[in-house]
Amino acid sequence: MANNVTQKLIQSHLLEGDMKPGEEIGIKIDQALLQDATGTLVQLELEAMGLDKAKTEVAVQYVDHNLLQTDYKNADDHKFLRSASQRFGLWFSRPGNGVSHPVHMERFGKPGKTLVGSDSHTCAAGSLGMLAIGTGGLDVATAIAGQPYFVKMPKVMGVKLTGKLPDWVSAKDVVLEMLRRHDVKGGVGKIIEYYGNGLKELSAMDRHVIANMGAELGATTTVFPSDEETKRFLKSQNREEDWTELLADEGCEYDFYEEIILDDLVPLIALPTSPGNVVPVSEVAGKPISQVVIGSSANPGLRDFWIASAIVKDKSVSPEVSFDINPTSRQIMQNMIENKTFGNLIKSGARFHQSGCMGCIGMGQAPASGTISLRTMPRNFPDRSGTKDDQVYLCSPETAAASALMGKITDPRDLEKEFDMKYPKFEYPTYEIINTDMLVAPVDDNEFIELEKGPNIKTLPEIPELQETYKVPVLLKMGDNISTDEILKAGAEVLPFRSNLPEISKYSFIVIDDTFYDRAMETKKSRGGHVVVAGENYAQGSSREHAALAPKYLGQVAVIAKSYARIAWQNLVNFGILPLEFDKDSDYELIDQGDDIELKDVINSVKSNKPIEVLIHKTNGETKTITTKHTLSGRQIDILIKGGIINDFKEKL
Amino acid sequence: MANNVTQKLIQSHLLEGDMKPGEEIGIKIDQALLQDATGTLVQLELEAMGLDKAKTEVAVQYVDHNLLQTDYKNADDHKFLRSASQRFGLWFSRPGNGVSHPVHMERFGKPGKTLVGSDSHTCAAGSLGMLAIGTGGLDVATAIAGQPYFVKMPKVMGVKLTGKLPDWVSAKDVVLEMLRRHDVKGGVGKIIEYYGNGLKELSAMDRHVIANMGAELGATTTVFPSDEETKRFLKSQNREEDWTELLADEGCEYDFYEEIILDDLVPLIALPTSPGNVVPVSEVAGKPISQVVIGSSANPGLRDFWIASAIVKDKSVSPEVSFDINPTSRQIMQNMIENKTFGNLIKSGARFHQSGCMGCIGMGQAPASGTISLRTMPRNFPDRSGTKDDQVYLCSPETAAASALMGKITDPRDLEKEFDMKYPKFEYPTYEIINTDMLVAPVDDNEFIELEKGPNIKTLPEIPELQETYKVPVLLKMGDNISTDEILKAGAEVLPFRSNLPEISKYSFIVIDDTFYDRAMETKKSRGGHVVVAGENYAQGSSREHAALAPKYLGQVAVIAKSYARIAWQNLVNFGILPLEFDKDSDYELIDQGDDIELKDVINSVKSNKPIEVLIHKTNGETKTITTKHTLSGRQIDILIKGGIINDFKEKL
Repeated sequence: MANNVTQKLIQSHLLEGDMKPGEEIGIKIDQALLQDATGTLVQLELEAMGLDKAKTEVAVQYVDHNLLQTDYKNADDHKFLRSASQRFGLWFSRPGNGVSHPVHMERFGKPGKTLVGSDSHTCAAGSLGMLAIGTGGLDVATAIAGQPYFVKMPKVMGVKLTGKLPDWVSAKDVVLEMLRRHDVKGGVGKIIEYYGNGLKELSAMDRHVIANMGAELGATTTVFPSDEETKRFLKSQNREEDWTELLADEGCEYDFYEEIILDDLVPLIALPTSPGNVVPVSEVAGKPISQVVIGSSANPGLRDFWIASAIVKDKSVSPEVSFDINPTSRQIMQNMIENKTFGNLIKSGARFHQSGCMGCIGMGQAPASGTISLRTMPRNFPDRSGTKDDQVYLCSPETAAASALMGKITDPRDLEKEFDMKYPKFEYPTYEIINTDMLVAPVDDNEFIELEKGPNIKTLPEIPELQETYKVPVLLKMGDNISTDEILKAGAEVLPFRSNLPEISKYSFIVIDDTFYDRAMETKKSRGGHVVVAGENYAQGSSREHAALAPKYLGQVAVIAKSYARIAWQNLVNFGILPLEFDKDSDYELIDQGDDIELKDVINSVKSNKPIEVLIHKTNGETKTITTKHTLSGRQIDILIKGGIINDFKEKL
Repeated sequence: MANNVTQKLIQSHLLEGDMKPGEEIGIKIDQALLQDATGTLVQLELEAMGLDKAKTEVAVQYVDHNLLQTDYKNADDHKFLRSASQRFGLWFSRPGNGVSHPVHMERFGKPGKTLVGSDSHTCAAGSLGMLAIGTGGLDVATAIAGQPYFVKMPKVMGVKLTGKLPDWVSAKDVVLEMLRRHDVKGGVGKIIEYYGNGLKELSAMDRHVIANMGAELGATTTVFPSDEETKRFLKSQNREEDWTELLADEGCEYDFYEEIILDDLVPLIALPTSPGNVVPVSEVAGKPISQVVIGSSANPGLRDFWIASAIVKDKSVSPEVSFDINPTSRQIMQNMIENKTFGNLIKSGARFHQSGCMGCIGMGQAPASGTISLRTMPRNFPDRSGTKDDQVYLCSPETAAASALMGKITDPRDLEKEFDMKYPKFEYPTYEIINTDMLVAPVDDNEFIELEKGPNIKTLPEIPELQETYKVPVLLKMGDNISTDEILKAGAEVLPFRSNLPEISKYSFIVIDDTFYDRAMETKKSRGGHVVVAGENYAQGSSREHAALAPKYLGQVAVIAKSYARIAWQNLVNFGILPLEFDKDSDYELIDQGDDIELKDVINSVKSNKPIEVLIHKTNGETKTITTKHTLSGRQIDILIKGGIINDFKEKL
């Protein structure tokens, strides 16, 4: 049978289940990736599981989120992560070494391998022909411990790329076009696989740009073939021996088909406050801007910085614009110095920052109130930049650099007229400068290494088992596409508490309703818990498991939603929260914030896959009954009844 | 009569008073410097004063403190400062352009000129033969408005430098030696003037290192002659025409004499938690460290980064050490790229940060709990790094780089044995790369420019006039050498509120007593105010006027101390707080926290320079009487009675 790349990757790693869309499968995991904001919790979970040493071929702890160090907490976390990496047999990428996804691709990515990572953009490694899935921290912990990774077999969307990219249009515009067509949930339950002659137009790092922002489409992951370009890339990283070819068989099929004619693309831009609000740049050209930021895992490559430098070279950026550059990694900085990119950017007015996620995760770089910030980053959810009511637009490095020059949103094609500029073309170097000095390898005698825990690193509390009945209030009713940034925001104030659950819980839903924490704590005491109600695609965005763990800590019993984002849905189960779905979407209208919800015979109903009746006690004394369902596997039901994966593991040990 | 350099500088600018030590003199100010953390307030003061355009030859607003932008406040401040600079005729040095003092020296410093700056390290410009004084923001505002600057005529300490610096010993060790001998108040009431043959050993930027940390000695300022080296420096900055010679006359005299034989110096280090705790590095060598930071106005020069890079070149820093590099300015970054310093540092493991003060002012880079951080910065007051009970050591770039390599405090002379390393010698380039793109010049039609005020920028409240009598409690009794970092700390959490008095007041004295704010607000309401008591050298350190303004907002009537740091003493008067001094130091023992203090006939006593009686009502019902004094000038007494300089100005307008 003719297989596509996705099918080949899954088939070669299948341990449990059948490859039927919607059925749970268990796959062998070769590699694991942690970043620091989620990693402290994962390492604490590895400790709780009593792991002796990582069972994956490669597991890497990166430090790229919490870099500002406004007090002791970040630096204490870095020490803890270093000690835990050594203890559990992980590589440790030191602070300042760079953003996890491009560094992982450069140093560890291998065609044909599987990877899970506790970061939603882990899918970026699909650029090399890997099956790379972003997931909750507990799932990564269990993978590191040698367990299969469980996921519902997704459908595969084949995206055929044809033709050639026009001048001033680049990979970011390809994925923005996908978002324009499919919005932030068009990829839910799907793996997106790119194929076709147009692939020749895209370097491995261009493919990274597209694979990375597959997360914004809600896709399980994105997959590219491993071809001659993949080989060239690995050779440039001095790792030619890690290359294997991985191509779709001729005549293979996809569950969905899509086609992008590259020649037809124009520079695109995502308007606030969703990566799915995509329009041509020309539609919003002329709006004044106060900030341009270039960098992040969504445009991490040497080419991306080079093209920006080539555009601003020998000119000065607008005096009204803060032109912020976040170099991806130490290695890229060395290469940027080598090919003059760095010097040219500084000369024209760039403000360089340390290597890391920075403003992409709200760690600094917040724009001024009421002004527009243009970023090459992957997300622009509300408040993510750190500025209330922010206006963050997402675009390519070409659009970003052109706009920085002009002080307003600018279609980069206009530079041809404005400055008589020809589109600069990047030549990839045969070999890049390689820098591995800040990658600390695992050690042999690991079992005697002690964990260095600072005062902000707190043990997890016990999670209670599932009960037979609940009668609890609806503390919050939300709309569609609520992101994890709204459930538990990131940013400089909150991220340092990722290893301190009691503290971080205070920020639960604060973006939507700043009375939530107080109401939830009161309700936990007086009523034993609460539920929340949401529309479609609940908890999209970042993979942070704190968006389940913190509400659980505040007594969250269940979420009732029209549908769920994939990672968040797993995280809810992993931490013992019932992820219920409306049987009829219109029932959403029958529940209001403040109502009481009564659930009966819960365990039995969940186990037997029966519809779960929800009795709604309205504030006016009326009662209504609706039915809800779930789509949990038998394995997940077991976990849920025990109160989550940690309890499950404790029981097994 | 033979004059020293200090006397020449003052004489040529004297507008009021006699040059008798201790008498108030008024001098003409040629240049003014603002940084952003103090500058927002100064610009609001310029607005309140109704200034049309700056009257100084040069006035520059730098942005180097508040760069993290963890929310909208920093970026809003930057916008406000840019608009205000344009409105009032100041240069504007954009965020990312660099640290004020070295940039000012490179671009605007001029031998023979006077400079005031709202930053305590303004004295660094003394390196070029300027009279450069750090002072409170209101003093800078009045200077910009064309008024004389008033200061008590200091005594002059002549420091003769002889001989040659040994290998591995540099300018930082010279000023650390001064601190070892004279501690943090050895310079109070003095100007320190360097002379002698040893000057030939010190480049202009070396002199900057020494002049900069004159602030840590408590000196009014530090003065160097303008000689051939000054000329070479200005030529390297493409400003040879700004050079004039300014040398001490043969046979001139000083009020105090000191001599340093450079040959006898060894690498020195200041232990926590004072720049005055200086010992030879060898005494503490071997202690493990977690962080090394190179940069700040105390070691800002190309040589300082180059020597560090030459030491770590082709080696890797210890895996236990975060090796943080804060490049001083965009210009220095370009020069560091040019001479390979940048690349060599990255290669060996450096973590580069944006150009600015960064960790020096607690904006990020906080070290891990319970670990040692080595810094080339000027200050290590408690909590200034952002980590509670921090252990910050101050040293030269040589000591810092050697220690980063070894992972422990290391005497750099040991590198000769350890790595068979010869002391690398820096060759100054004839011309540096000059970068002025982010320096925005004043404009002509300035009066129509509107101030852009974000929501965090608050108008100042009214300050009441001095009363005849007070009966208020002693809310806090403190010891000697209390720094402005303890009165009103800096750091990432607090600095963004520099333009928001009600908010920043909540941090008053929080380092010493976190109940202070609540007690002060309560006392303000119930008792009309409070006093605090302190020992010697009250409010040393940073020039921040918020350390007077915030306590005033909380109802502070008077401070009773054994003695005051110069800038803080002026700030107290400027904001209407009585700076009383014990007549007998032993009376300090008679007052306890919680006592009530009664002051009678205040205005009359202050005016007539009579001793001011303080009636102490002890908590056990006893009463005691002590006398206090003040050393205010007639001009200052007028200001104090009116409730500070703002009221004084309002009255004049």
